[in-house]
Amino acid sequence: MAVASLSRNSNIALPIHPIAMSLLVVGSIAFDSIQTPKDQRERVMGGSGTYGSIAASFFAPVRLVGVVGNDWPKANWDFLLNRGIDLTGVAVAEHAKTFYWLGRYTPDLCDRETLEIELNAFQHFDPVIPHAFRDTPYVFLANTPPAIQLRVIDQLKNPQMVFADTVDLWIETMRPELLSVLRRIDGLLINDVEARQLTELDNVIAAGKAIQRLGPTFVIIKRGEHGAMFFGPDGVGVLPSYPVENIVDPTGAGDSFAGGMMGYLAGLGSTSPTDLKTAMAYGALVASFAVENFSIERLEQIDRAAIEKRMASYRAMLQV
Amino acid sequence: MAVASLSRNSNIALPIHPIAMSLLVVGSIAFDSIQTPKDQRERVMGGSGTYGSIAASFFAPVRLVGVVGNDWPKANWDFLLNRGIDLTGVAVAEHAKTFYWLGRYTPDLCDRETLEIELNAFQHFDPVIPHAFRDTPYVFLANTPPAIQLRVIDQLKNPQMVFADTVDLWIETMRPELLSVLRRIDGLLINDVEARQLTELDNVIAAGKAIQRLGPTFVIIKRGEHGAMFFGPDGVGVLPSYPVENIVDPTGAGDSFAGGMMGYLAGLGSTSPTDLKTAMAYGALVASFAVENFSIERLEQIDRAAIEKRMASYRAMLQV
Repeated sequence: MAVASLSRNSNIALPIHPIAMSLLVVGSIAFDSIQTPKDQRERVMGGSGTYGSIAASFFAPVRLVGVVGNDWPKANWDFLLNRGIDLTGVAVAEHAKTFYWLGRYTPDLCDRETLEIELNAFQHFDPVIPHAFRDTPYVFLANTPPAIQLRVIDQLKNPQMVFADTVDLWIETMRPELLSVLRRIDGLLINDVEARQLTELDNVIAAGKAIQRLGPTFVIIKRGEHGAMFFGPDGVGVLPSYPVENIVDPTGAGDSFAGGMMGYLAGLGSTSPTDLKTAMAYGALVASFAVENFSIERLEQIDRAAIEKRMASYRAMLQV
Repeated sequence: MAVASLSRNSNIALPIHPIAMSLLVVGSIAFDSIQTPKDQRERVMGGSGTYGSIAASFFAPVRLVGVVGNDWPKANWDFLLNRGIDLTGVAVAEHAKTFYWLGRYTPDLCDRETLEIELNAFQHFDPVIPHAFRDTPYVFLANTPPAIQLRVIDQLKNPQMVFADTVDLWIETMRPELLSVLRRIDGLLINDVEARQLTELDNVIAAGKAIQRLGPTFVIIKRGEHGAMFFGPDGVGVLPSYPVENIVDPTGAGDSFAGGMMGYLAGLGSTSPTDLKTAMAYGALVASFAVENFSIERLEQIDRAAIEKRMASYRAMLQV
């Protein structure tokens, strides 16, 4: 496995504040094939690290760590570089293909089933954080097995804010490792079903508080189209999702939410609960764009100004 | 069936603005027996009209129209009168008992089943709006069969704002009457499952807009703990529910939401979309109190100041 020699393309001007801090994103990089009731796509760009880093790149310089196979096309490298994403930490597995996922959504787009999954290069992913990245102040551990998240945490030097995402599979099969992750991060992102599963509590607020007691100062419970709940040192709150009438493909919504949120925080250089709430709102808006088309097609079309315009409308909506 | 000769007890000072307009509430008045995983109550005060009028009474003078049987206790009359609710329009069926419902909630409190239902006096409910009430400017038609809602609408004189609530049973069994109601009201309250059922559209935003095309200027889609969506002349919005950790009994949450909302609007004397959104927030807060205990036990304990305190916290929560 060789580390790619591609570095950040600093010629691309993104409207990021000059003193924005960097965000390290570690996650999967994948080809997705997606079937929805109305349309489908084959082998489009996907993966938790991909969505997370693209979403974050609206707000801060992003460093992506992950692995691809020998079939990852130049167009995909170029797209990520053009977003200002530093790919020094993306390894290329020379004798394997890229992680592949084929999924089909239910008619209401609220659920999906995995029809095919090939871990390929991701199966032996052992993240090596480039030395120059180890002191990145903001870190988003997108969904990967908690053992991998722990390997990353071991390599970090004095991070200011580390958030991790997880899914039901790890709660079932790697609970001890996940509990170790919880003791070593500042914030956890998890959906409501998983929060209940992790804590065995029916009430989602009780579940969020119980997760805080397992370690993280912040817990964010994602509820898809119903928004997100946040648990911080000052209590509990909830923010709605931005209403989207024409949801085309929900894939990557959670990762876009998390990436947008972490990118905004890094861009601001803040770790305060108040700014985290605003960051969640930005995350929700990036996710609201992401679901408007397949893969990263919609995110490709928008810029920070489009996000700010939607933010103004979101703020007006919440003015009561 | 005799009309009760109880009139509004004007000695009870409620902090309602002196120029507040009145709200007419028409709905069921019932005994509820409720079983939750942790506790239960027998024959407590319930019904859509009861919850709706009590919730509204924090904000405006309320006139309730409904029917009870010969077993409705004096304590219940007194409670409603003490809330400043005018009961002139509540008929007493001398040879029948009061509507009775026995329900049991699922462990997560998200669903319930009806174990027993006795319509009793409500079976032949034919609402007669007292002449003095017919020009009430604000009207909330709480959940009753749409044929009854039409009978009420026929008796109204130039109302400023009429909202109706409905449920799945009437969409299934009385669709033509419900469609007639929709053509004659300003706003419909409906939950998300019912909105999809009524319109046969999967997307809740598309469903809300489709309902607007059936008549009402405003559509409010209730989503329980996930908040509510509003559809007005200026577009679509969504507000979250106030997070409640200790939900004891969800019965009447939707009616409390609607009653609080309509009461606030009447108290303000407004029909503007902006004020309606604020009214929805007040409705959500009254509902958040209502679910904190069985029946109207929690609403009995609070006053307008408690609602305003929670409103300040809700507004802070939505500040992003």
